[in-house]
Amino acid sequence: MIILGIDPGLAIVGYGVIETQKGASRAIDCGVINTPKEDSVPVRLSKIYDGMMSLIDKYKPDCIAIEELFFNTNITTGINVAQARGVILLACTQKNLKMYEYTPLQIKQALTGYGKAEKKQIQFMVTRLLNLKAVPKPDDAADGLAVALTHAQTARMGGLFSIR
Amino acid sequence: MIILGIDPGLAIVGYGVIETQKGASRAIDCGVINTPKEDSVPVRLSKIYDGMMSLIDKYKPDCIAIEELFFNTNITTGINVAQARGVILLACTQKNLKMYEYTPLQIKQALTGYGKAEKKQIQFMVTRLLNLKAVPKPDDAADGLAVALTHAQTARMGGLFSIR
Repeated sequence: MIILGIDPGLAIVGYGVIETQKGASRAIDCGVINTPKEDSVPVRLSKIYDGMMSLIDKYKPDCIAIEELFFNTNITTGINVAQARGVILLACTQKNLKMYEYTPLQIKQALTGYGKAEKKQIQFMVTRLLNLKAVPKPDDAADGLAVALTHAQTARMGGLFSIR
Repeated sequence: MIILGIDPGLAIVGYGVIETQKGASRAIDCGVINTPKEDSVPVRLSKIYDGMMSLIDKYKPDCIAIEELFFNTNITTGINVAQARGVILLACTQKNLKMYEYTPLQIKQALTGYGKAEKKQIQFMVTRLLNLKAVPKPDDAADGLAVALTHAQTARMGGLFSIR
């Protein structure tokens, strides 16, 4: 099973592609879709959509795992992240992909067994579970792998709930 | 100039199409894109996208006027509205349309001269400015016309700022 994990954002969408087999996962790729600040929000959304379509065409994932949004204090950033996430969900729907969403809490618990784990601990576990030589950079790419791994783990344990 | 006004939402997207000429505006159509609660969020986003594409193909607007989001107390609704708005902006960008956004305050001021006007007063002015026989139904359709009229008014006064 190939899983595309997505950490949504307007400026940076992080992604991680993993393959799972018999309980073991290996990293296929990870990276980010960047959109320049100089562009308008609609143009940036359009670049995210195109980027998602290319990723799906390239890696042909069986499903998508995406971070659920929680709102911090910055409402403007929150709205933009949600607008970007809408476009990401659209791209995946148009490609007929199953989608699963996980909260930051679920990701922390799945990877470290501790819901209040710090970012460094998550990155440590991503590196370890995928037998990587170094922590994936940038952070958003590592977050993409983390949500993909969370899905692999959840699928192994049963109890999946597709949002589509 | 044909203006497509949009009141974004996940369950209901309101729209109003108007034509402006020499300072006068007439209504061409108004209505809503409804998405059923039974569908998943991604599927609903996809229906909104398809609905927007159809509206644009049908009315061939010169530009889009869309309500800016403000967050009320319901964060989940807020996230879903923003996700829907992202998909709407994407559809308009892919159709190469200019887009303009207006806050509820700007809409109230443009149509009634009073930033704290109530919904009924806005609906009264929409009906009056477009010489309609009755208040457009449902409310979301009237809101679509209101934001389109706001753009017509703003364009007449100068001082436009396209978000794309």
